[in-house]
Amino acid sequence: MTTPPNLSHGRPYLAIPGPSVIPDPVLQAMHRAAPNIYDGELVDMMPGLTADLKRVARTQHHVAMYTGNGHAAWEAALANVIRPGDKVLVPATGRFGVGWGEMAKGIGAEVDLLDFGLHSPMDMDRISEVLKADKAHEIKAVLGVHVDTSTSIRNDIPALRAVIDAADHPALLMADCIASLGCDLFEMDDWGVDVMVTGCQKGLMVPPGMSFVFFNDKADAARASMPRVSWYWDWSPRAHAEEFFQYHGGTAPTHHLYGLRTALDMIHAEGIEAVWARHAVLARAIWAACEAWSEAGSFAMNVTDRAYRSNAVTSLRLEAPKATALRNWVEGQLGLTLGIGLGMAPPKDPAWHGFFRLGHMGHVNGQMIMGLLGGIEAGMRSLNIEHGPGALDAASAVIAEN
Amino acid sequence: MTTPPNLSHGRPYLAIPGPSVIPDPVLQAMHRAAPNIYDGELVDMMPGLTADLKRVARTQHHVAMYTGNGHAAWEAALANVIRPGDKVLVPATGRFGVGWGEMAKGIGAEVDLLDFGLHSPMDMDRISEVLKADKAHEIKAVLGVHVDTSTSIRNDIPALRAVIDAADHPALLMADCIASLGCDLFEMDDWGVDVMVTGCQKGLMVPPGMSFVFFNDKADAARASMPRVSWYWDWSPRAHAEEFFQYHGGTAPTHHLYGLRTALDMIHAEGIEAVWARHAVLARAIWAACEAWSEAGSFAMNVTDRAYRSNAVTSLRLEAPKATALRNWVEGQLGLTLGIGLGMAPPKDPAWHGFFRLGHMGHVNGQMIMGLLGGIEAGMRSLNIEHGPGALDAASAVIAEN
Amino acid sequence: MTTPPNLSHGRPYLAIPGPSVIPDPVLQAMHRAAPNIYDGELVDMMPGLTADLKRVARTQHHVAMYTGNGHAAWEAALANVIRPGDKVLVPATGRFGVGWGEMAKGIGAEVDLLDFGLHSPMDMDRISEVLKADKAHEIKAVLGVHVDTSTSIRNDIPALRAVIDAADHPALLMADCIASLGCDLFEMDDWGVDVMVTGCQKGLMVPPGMSFVFFNDKADAARASMPRVSWYWDWSPRAHAEEFFQYHGGTAPTHHLYGLRTALDMIHAEGIEAVWARHAVLARAIWAACEAWSEAGSFAMNVTDRAYRSNAVTSLRLEAPKATALRNWVEGQLGLTLGIGLGMAPPKDPAWHGFFRLGHMGHVNGQMIMGLLGGIEAGMRSLNIEHGPGALDAASAVIAEN
Amino acid sequence: MTTPPNLSHGRPYLAIPGPSVIPDPVLQAMHRAAPNIYDGELVDMMPGLTADLKRVARTQHHVAMYTGNGHAAWEAALANVIRPGDKVLVPATGRFGVGWGEMAKGIGAEVDLLDFGLHSPMDMDRISEVLKADKAHEIKAVLGVHVDTSTSIRNDIPALRAVIDAADHPALLMADCIASLGCDLFEMDDWGVDVMVTGCQKGLMVPPGMSFVFFNDKADAARASMPRVSWYWDWSPRAHAEEFFQYHGGTAPTHHLYGLRTALDMIHAEGIEAVWARHAVLARAIWAACEAWSEAGSFAMNVTDRAYRSNAVTSLRLEAPKATALRNWVEGQLGLTLGIGLGMAPPKDPAWHGFFRLGHMGHVNGQMIMGLLGGIEAGMRSLNIEHGPGALDAASAVIAEN
Repeated sequence: MTTPPNLSHGRPYLAIPGPSVIPDPVLQAMHRAAPNIYDGELVDMMPGLTADLKRVARTQHHVAMYTGNGHAAWEAALANVIRPGDKVLVPATGRFGVGWGEMAKGIGAEVDLLDFGLHSPMDMDRISEVLKADKAHEIKAVLGVHVDTSTSIRNDIPALRAVIDAADHPALLMADCIASLGCDLFEMDDWGVDVMVTGCQKGLMVPPGMSFVFFNDKADAARASMPRVSWYWDWSPRAHAEEFFQYHGGTAPTHHLYGLRTALDMIHAEGIEAVWARHAVLARAIWAACEAWSEAGSFAMNVTDRAYRSNAVTSLRLEAPKATALRNWVEGQLGLTLGIGLGMAPPKDPAWHGFFRLGHMGHVNGQMIMGLLGGIEAGMRSLNIEHGPGALDAASAVIAEN
Repeated sequence: MTTPPNLSHGRPYLAIPGPSVIPDPVLQAMHRAAPNIYDGELVDMMPGLTADLKRVARTQHHVAMYTGNGHAAWEAALANVIRPGDKVLVPATGRFGVGWGEMAKGIGAEVDLLDFGLHSPMDMDRISEVLKADKAHEIKAVLGVHVDTSTSIRNDIPALRAVIDAADHPALLMADCIASLGCDLFEMDDWGVDVMVTGCQKGLMVPPGMSFVFFNDKADAARASMPRVSWYWDWSPRAHAEEFFQYHGGTAPTHHLYGLRTALDMIHAEGIEAVWARHAVLARAIWAACEAWSEAGSFAMNVTDRAYRSNAVTSLRLEAPKATALRNWVEGQLGLTLGIGLGMAPPKDPAWHGFFRLGHMGHVNGQMIMGLLGGIEAGMRSLNIEHGPGALDAASAVIAEN
Repeated sequence: MTTPPNLSHGRPYLAIPGPSVIPDPVLQAMHRAAPNIYDGELVDMMPGLTADLKRVARTQHHVAMYTGNGHAAWEAALANVIRPGDKVLVPATGRFGVGWGEMAKGIGAEVDLLDFGLHSPMDMDRISEVLKADKAHEIKAVLGVHVDTSTSIRNDIPALRAVIDAADHPALLMADCIASLGCDLFEMDDWGVDVMVTGCQKGLMVPPGMSFVFFNDKADAARASMPRVSWYWDWSPRAHAEEFFQYHGGTAPTHHLYGLRTALDMIHAEGIEAVWARHAVLARAIWAACEAWSEAGSFAMNVTDRAYRSNAVTSLRLEAPKATALRNWVEGQLGLTLGIGLGMAPPKDPAWHGFFRLGHMGHVNGQMIMGLLGGIEAGMRSLNIEHGPGALDAASAVIAEN
Repeated sequence: MTTPPNLSHGRPYLAIPGPSVIPDPVLQAMHRAAPNIYDGELVDMMPGLTADLKRVARTQHHVAMYTGNGHAAWEAALANVIRPGDKVLVPATGRFGVGWGEMAKGIGAEVDLLDFGLHSPMDMDRISEVLKADKAHEIKAVLGVHVDTSTSIRNDIPALRAVIDAADHPALLMADCIASLGCDLFEMDDWGVDVMVTGCQKGLMVPPGMSFVFFNDKADAARASMPRVSWYWDWSPRAHAEEFFQYHGGTAPTHHLYGLRTALDMIHAEGIEAVWARHAVLARAIWAACEAWSEAGSFAMNVTDRAYRSNAVTSLRLEAPKATALRNWVEGQLGLTLGIGLGMAPPKDPAWHGFFRLGHMGHVNGQMIMGLLGGIEAGMRSLNIEHGPGALDAASAVIAEN
């Protein structure tokens, strides 16, 4: 028997920071004939979907659904309240913060970028200075990414609200919760977020294809003062729909709606607070393992302060090109796919091969996380990547203590 | 046994003009775990998808994919070549023609609407007059709907090209093939269409959620001269992508891509010309039945001239409110869902209840069409709706002659 | 455009007398990960499944489930009450009656076959004579097929019970309802049936793989007096299970159980009496068409008396080899698959090509039946098969009158 | 936030010794409309299925497929070669060995049971003695379980063949490979196995519902000499089928056939030798962890000698009722289902709560096994079950060394 053993032939595990693992019931719900779009089940489903989305976002206000991805939601949110020439403040902590700013430029905004690098959360003092200096209130919005998927930094959105308020500045607070909604604690209304964008493919556990813009009455008033909002991006008919097609700006994403319905049922059956708590414990298990590995060799967590780490994604470093080697080994040998580095350096840069990311968002449980960590441990052993001991025991201890 | 018999408990048939019937292999292909989005099968799939989409559109030029619906493709197409203040000419033959014009207004265009009503194709002479009168070439584009889904009028796109050329006018010819691509003969390059938009949920047989903008080099040059195109709508990175995420402007609609791959395989296995021929025969069978029904009572086809009838959708009239009664009966009693009237009058208008539509696009075969027509015949009999005789025999004769 | 049009590229319709059309919700329910077989949902599901199966069979008595097909249920039923050397009476009206008798021979029984041919129901007088002549009560069971799938003859089971009773004969009445349960009126207890066998793949709308033996206390007493029943066929632990594995004689057919659960939910949501009524109307629509076709040419229904026609399957004749030509045409050109002749003559016999069958069992509605009949009409026209006129109108009239 | 965190809300992992984890492509293949059973794809598939099953079993001889479970295959195998009154020798090493013997009794055989208990493989010397003592060759078959799923003992089938040969005894060697085929090295022809039975739901990765009897010409000759074999169990028409229905003894298990086709494609794409090698490495990883845990407390492996351990299932002990507590905790808290003890003591016996089993058969890869072991480690920590240290590191080292 000379065939070399390969240990990947089993259920693949895609542990990347989105698209996340899709629950079987969601896929089942989407496997159906095209439905009646004039009346009946699907049409009747809309008010409940809207309400249940708002429950996840912890808001009493409005939500517009878009057939599109996270970038669509970014552009939609901007298109409703920012006109060409308006200024926006972008405090960035990773690729996605920067990217949202670029998108604002794409619709003609003037972008004031505060780049806080790749390892630190927003510096609220610097933001405060900028806002206080803007006596003319030219800044129309502050675009804050809650969790930047590239760096896994989680920013303190209530603190961002506080500095805006302290500066007595009328700018809208717009939050990107693409990588955090349904994973990390988020309270849209309590935190005073005016506009929030997210996608369906991470904490909401639906295949990519839908995104959402939540907004409050202050934001809606800003939209009302716009001279023109393009038909597809206009959130008004979508959020205040009287006919089914208005929710979706034309043909509805029929199968995604069924998937979303099922995913929301799962989230609310578990309870959104229980969902957050699950993500928190699993993240701590991952951190315990990663901190152990960091004790030797080049293994390092991108975010050192636990207070600023996402519960949904973890960015890691290894001396290049070991990160790429590790990713390749665990995928090829164990059926485990890890996330690539993103936004830290161009993919053709050798340094890029020193980053990788773990997704632990949405449909994840204790045995999956132990498999993820166990796979990485095996990979580092096989590739002789130096690392600290005791990682798996440390992770299992966190899970056990739960 | 007093329970009243209901004859709807079987396989539902959604005979509406989109979303169309989704083939089982497409649904199967979409029922899968979230895939690796960095490399492997899905990433490698893109060049083939692009090529096979172009084969359906009969073009050697470019295609940009959008996560969005048909309205997204409309807005995307406009956003790449029309700037605020530009003039567009809209020769409308139904709700969708008018609607595309409204969308152009939404991005700031000045719209010159030629409304040809709900029963007649474009009048090329009137279009010619307008173009010839536009000595300053202020009209940047002519927005022509190939098949208007609301009226089922099929316009003569080559004739539209001819009047533009005869007027020696530089305006782009932009065609909406949402209801015709993969159903009616369409030759993008041979017909000189500069920009074409379509969606995935009709002739392409995929659940709604993706749309496409095809364009040639003339259109691409127009886009290059734009001062700014918003990030999500910009077709350049999508059509000339170097990285996977560029094709999709961010996160890819992963499951739809698998569905689309399968649908294109089915189309090209049958052969696009055979697909057109199948739609043509089935449409003639439907027309034969409808013409027979029209011999008595109020039953009428919306388009009298066969040369201007779509092969994918048929709009019909019955004295109000009989159309609504018929739709309700065949759905409730037979499991057959027909399309509502669209764009002819507001739904709350009593007249609206005098229209209905049949979808016969994409995944349709001979026995389905006979079931559709047989269901309508039974419905009219049951409701005592006066109609001409011999419809089913006439339809079966067309199918038999094939 | 020279590619020849083919009209089969749409949703295939398998109109054969089993396996029948599987409802999408049943397939969805079966598309799931392997479940826990020790406790939880699946284990808890068993009492309800048992009860709901009995509701379909209209019995208060017992049911044993088998992982197996209809032949397995045949053999299981016999193995519990017939020992080698026992005599059974088999009044046959088609291939399946004969076949059950052959199976009885296979377990060592002595078989008294009364063959009533292929066009007539059981002759109760002849059965009565045989039973009365059996003074010694050597006949242990009468094996009666309710609907013989090959000939589509429906026998009068209450009349069969009556002749047994009139002869004061203790033989068990064993009924094969494989092709009738969930389609034709059947009342196990009211009709005095002692043992009934069926499969999951016809009126029960589940992919083939499970079958069922229902029995009453008289039959159970007969089993108790058997010297030995083989482990797999023994109905006692299956019908009187205390542990989950006992229901299934080992490993359960996990996915089929989920499919069956869904199918039974659908049946009882509609109501078993409504299910029967639906089958009855649709059968009458088919008969109306077939009777019209029979007015000219060689088209003939196998059963002339409506009182003895199945509501689930219809056997038909056409001058050979026209039946085969018709089946081939409608499948190849329209996507419609009809049943072959069965048990009337060997498949290599030219006469075999003069028979075909229509399945109309389980998940069938009005538009499907019109598609089935419309497809046949088109086929006969295309192949120049002489037939009477007005079939489709006649069928639609029956459906309309409902 | 007072909702208690529960870590089970993710993809469930059923790590029981069958049904095993079903690959997504197998489930996809089974999610389809009922197929044509007269001709076409499914019918044409049979010769290839037969050939590919034989390649898994490493035989050039015959295979009969049954719609049924493993117990059906047991009974079928016996029914073809054992007549009432025949003697069979059953050397048992667990519940399933004993059970096959009981089934033989059920068909009237005289059973000579050699019970080797629950921790040791067959004692070939004792078997040899019995065979040599049977001068009259009354023993018609030796029923040997390759891997007993209850105890996880793997017996040495070539050695069993050798003792039969050494005794110059004509008894058939019948092997049960239900828990080993496609997991542990098995060579039907090279090892001289006359009859082999297996099911589809373990190494073959298909939902339960089909089973298989492989046999060689010697066994077929034995069957030919039988006075009668019941219709459903008769392997002749199934193994030597000329018509499609003969393969399946009636209606085919249509959807299972598609699933089986896909599973066999996966096995042969990987290569059966590579499949064995994968199972061997993963089993060694499990053993390394279990041996580490065994260093303290009551944790113990049921089989101490690695040479007699299955590569597909591992039976374990913990002081009662800790095994049950552990199973409950990992399922309720982590989404990980472990196998119950089987055949060691009745479930109502308190001792039963001291056993549990791990399934690692079929569609299993490295990250799954690390998740399985990591989950158990966490469970034992949480429940304060004393156990030796270093288990996860030991397992990861085995995987890394591969």
